[in-house]
Amino acid sequence: MNRPIAVAPDTRPVMYEAMCRAVSAAGASLVEPREAEGLIWADPGRTEDFPEIVADAERLSWIQLPYAGIEPFAHHLDYRWTWTCGKGVYAPAVAETVLSLILALGKNLHGYARMQSWSGPEGRILAGSRITILGGGGITSHLLPLLAPWGCDVTVVRRSVTPLPGANRTITSARLHEVLPMTDVLVVALALTAETTGIIGRPEFDALPDRAMLVNVARGGHVVTSDLVDALQGGRIAAAALDVTDPEPLPDGHPLWSLPNCLITPHIGNTPEMGIRLLEPFVADNVRRFCEGRDLLAGVDVALGY
Amino acid sequence: MNRPIAVAPDTRPVMYEAMCRAVSAAGASLVEPREAEGLIWADPGRTEDFPEIVADAERLSWIQLPYAGIEPFAHHLDYRWTWTCGKGVYAPAVAETVLSLILALGKNLHGYARMQSWSGPEGRILAGSRITILGGGGITSHLLPLLAPWGCDVTVVRRSVTPLPGANRTITSARLHEVLPMTDVLVVALALTAETTGIIGRPEFDALPDRAMLVNVARGGHVVTSDLVDALQGGRIAAAALDVTDPEPLPDGHPLWSLPNCLITPHIGNTPEMGIRLLEPFVADNVRRFCEGRDLLAGVDVALGY
Repeated sequence: MNRPIAVAPDTRPVMYEAMCRAVSAAGASLVEPREAEGLIWADPGRTEDFPEIVADAERLSWIQLPYAGIEPFAHHLDYRWTWTCGKGVYAPAVAETVLSLILALGKNLHGYARMQSWSGPEGRILAGSRITILGGGGITSHLLPLLAPWGCDVTVVRRSVTPLPGANRTITSARLHEVLPMTDVLVVALALTAETTGIIGRPEFDALPDRAMLVNVARGGHVVTSDLVDALQGGRIAAAALDVTDPEPLPDGHPLWSLPNCLITPHIGNTPEMGIRLLEPFVADNVRRFCEGRDLLAGVDVALGY
Repeated sequence: MNRPIAVAPDTRPVMYEAMCRAVSAAGASLVEPREAEGLIWADPGRTEDFPEIVADAERLSWIQLPYAGIEPFAHHLDYRWTWTCGKGVYAPAVAETVLSLILALGKNLHGYARMQSWSGPEGRILAGSRITILGGGGITSHLLPLLAPWGCDVTVVRRSVTPLPGANRTITSARLHEVLPMTDVLVVALALTAETTGIIGRPEFDALPDRAMLVNVARGGHVVTSDLVDALQGGRIAAAALDVTDPEPLPDGHPLWSLPNCLITPHIGNTPEMGIRLLEPFVADNVRRFCEGRDLLAGVDVALGY
């Protein structure tokens, strides 16, 4: 069934056009929000426009957000509508970034990139390392196959202990401190909720071995930034690569910018180029499902906030 | 059979001790060079000491060099002795470095490492890329399994067209220019010989697409440095990561140090820490083979020079 779908706002042309293509590809009709049954949100940076855009949208029943983590939109969530997001859509791109950052830290590429002179060879082998991954969602599911050839010992920390293919074991966060002392690489790939905010702070850095490396591709708020600065400055962990920071963007002059054992990437887990390429076919699929009355992908639980 | 083996010189203590342990682990007797039937060369940087060390070594029949590429020692090679080297020994470590460098370039990590300010997201997906690897030796054999999960289209350019597991196709260098225009990532992992010196220069950069990235972990001499500088400056290729350079070490002030699309690592393909860890069990194996009269691993063809 052809159902009326709106794409808004149009403030980010490349994304707007990609989302319009997705609606058309799914065989739905592109309409203004006030006539729409479904709304595709097409500018992650313009949450403040939302109330006005949906003010007259009386027929609206479904809203598709472009985010993997919807906290920028969380204050707009309510039970009037069915919400879906980009959960899992960008996971293949972010998983690539995770392995890129692990390898960069291990080979001291952040250090060498800053040199203007030949220096001594540094670096360690990743093969056989002990990797602990916080989160058992889409990023982890895509990361585990990339890690498969490396013969690492992989522990996934998640809500349930359901095994994940490619992980040597799955534990709940209640047992996090048991595995930290045997962790060479700690990857944060969780959703940010009240429970996971600040999950990595001073006690966790103290529990990690000196050689441990931290990679955060989830949200800056998972890590207590001041504790991380202390841990890096004091050599209590070896290095950190952060694709997300708290605050974000990381302000000029912040101590993390100048730590030799820290690599900051500006939320490139997926870049716009990668992200829109992955989002467009996903949105087309969800529009098709909406028109056909099938279950939507990447539903948001309004109560849980993700 | 217990045969007398010397380890020399002793100028690099960590390596000297590791090689002595390897000889003992193999059950051979450690002796001075003048009594030795086998000699383990234990300082890659002291080739000039070789003539004096073997001057009185009348019983000597076998020399184990620590190099993967033996050109620093090539002028000493002769047919009086059987030569073996470290060919293939460091390949697992170098293969890790190759993937690290490919990913770093693709995610602009060299660029971000140099920033002191939040900037825009850049980066591309490696999955599905077209990768051309020059060389079908140990590095390539260890790289191909690491690339397996990425769904890349991999072409190996080598002396023979014997298929390699994990490569989509194998061609000889006569057909290199056919594949260059369809190459996203060009990896140089060859032995350096007269034929392969300068194999990547202006004509090859011109044949590559603008988006191509170059990774050289073999020897600096494979790439014509001045042509590379031109190609990077002119945007004829997107980026290069060089673990080896010509000249090497790369002198201070060399243009490659300051190109934003170039990442130099100081021959870390394998670091001493990694390398000795890999070399020690290998040398023990070769000493055991020598004592038992079996074929030695990693033999050097004196005529070919590798």
